Amino acid sequence: MKLPDKVMKEGKAKVIYEKEDGNLLMKFKDDLTALDGLKHDQMPSKGKYNSVMTAHLLKLVADAGIPTHLVSLLEPGLMEVKKVEIIPVEAVLRNVATGSMVRRLPLEAGSRLPSPVIEFYLKDDALHDPWINDDHVRILGLATAEELKRIRELTLKVNDVLLDYFASKGLVLADFKLEFGRLGGDLVLADEITPDTMRIFDAKEFEKGRLVEYDKQIFRDGGSPEDIKAAYDEAFRRIVGEEPPF
Amino acid sequence: MKLPDKVMKEGKAKVIYEKEDGNLLMKFKDDLTALDGLKHDQMPSKGKYNSVMTAHLLKLVADAGIPTHLVSLLEPGLMEVKKVEIIPVEAVLRNVATGSMVRRLPLEAGSRLPSPVIEFYLKDDALHDPWINDDHVRILGLATAEELKRIRELTLKVNDVLLDYFASKGLVLADFKLEFGRLGGDLVLADEITPDTMRIFDAKEFEKGRLVEYDKQIFRDGGSPEDIKAAYDEAFRRIVGEEPPF
Repeated sequence: MKLPDKVMKEGKAKVIYEKEDGNLLMKFKDDLTALDGLKHDQMPSKGKYNSVMTAHLLKLVADAGIPTHLVSLLEPGLMEVKKVEIIPVEAVLRNVATGSMVRRLPLEAGSRLPSPVIEFYLKDDALHDPWINDDHVRILGLATAEELKRIRELTLKVNDVLLDYFASKGLVLADFKLEFGRLGGDLVLADEITPDTMRIFDAKEFEKGRLVEYDKQIFRDGGSPEDIKAAYDEAFRRIVGEEPPF
Repeated sequence: MKLPDKVMKEGKAKVIYEKEDGNLLMKFKDDLTALDGLKHDQMPSKGKYNSVMTAHLLKLVADAGIPTHLVSLLEPGLMEVKKVEIIPVEAVLRNVATGSMVRRLPLEAGSRLPSPVIEFYLKDDALHDPWINDDHVRILGLATAEELKRIRELTLKVNDVLLDYFASKGLVLADFKLEFGRLGGDLVLADEITPDTMRIFDAKEFEKGRLVEYDKQIFRDGGSPEDIKAAYDEAFRRIVGEEPPF
């Protein structure tokens, strides 16, 4: 499909175009970035993988009654979405202690948390997405108390849906990051749900105490292009239920 | 006064002894530490300054109906307090954007916040007192939801009392850190309130846009021993209302 000439916004993982009817086109890039952009590489067809997985998972949560920005996947790599006013607060939900949480707090890597933990981060590249709490959200005017409550509610609901779905695919959903946007008086789930924005472990290995994961962590940890490709292949297989055709 | 032989606990700023009747003795040290203990020095009589200021301010908030651990100041440098079960959560309240808040968030140094911001930190030297939110407090079992609500309530109440008091002394209370302990089914304000645990600016200079402060920040910023002494002298004069006699 021919893309509009004018780019509306370009981020690390996607380029956004505005359609004439007001909807947006999200072109998923093949770039892999990590460590706050210090680490950068490409994975052939990554944009196709991630767009297909995002559309698949957004449909899944939409079917469960969670409003999302998805209109349709136009073709692998290109998704049409509603134009929403993005709230610059990233909501991270954790079911398992990993990553920064384990480095910061007295928790063992790979331990299941007694109940989900939600953390908020300010979407601000220049400030490296700092952690924020409800008070910071308020004084920075990022969202109303009601919106923050709704973000928590929707994030927990998304977790309920994905946790079950991933479990049925032999995966443990350790954590994920969501973004929300304002649309017609309510909030809708926006952005992507991909191995770039979540950590997923093989369930069988996890039960044996081994963390085998199929997500961008492989890249952060310095995995080879083949290792990264294998991880995204397996994530695609489990999530979408078919062999990646790209 | 003769101190018990056995030290119950020694921190960076105080040594704690247990009395025979079950109360505790807090011996305030003359040590100055900053940058997570990397920076270390001494200020003669600092323990005396800080104990007198703490007792003065704890009495002030106690008179306003906030329960505290204070029994009495036995002599400059030595305070008798009730034995409480310390909750390992530091509550930081900010009225003015300074320090780490300004480095982390899009806020100007010295700008008044539209309303107070409370941040929580885990009291854990080995982990460098990491930030935590309500969910972390819950899953780490640090405090109940009710206790956290009470900590917020008491912290805001302390702020109301101190903000007015400091204003009457020509000072702007920019931020401070509190600790709380369990005692007889309620929480009480514990620890110290000193230029080590708060940032206070001269109000007249502040209104002119200049940040002149009388607290440990002078030490963090590499001030000379004379500059540090002058800052604590001025804090003492304003808070206690008399010339430091040490």
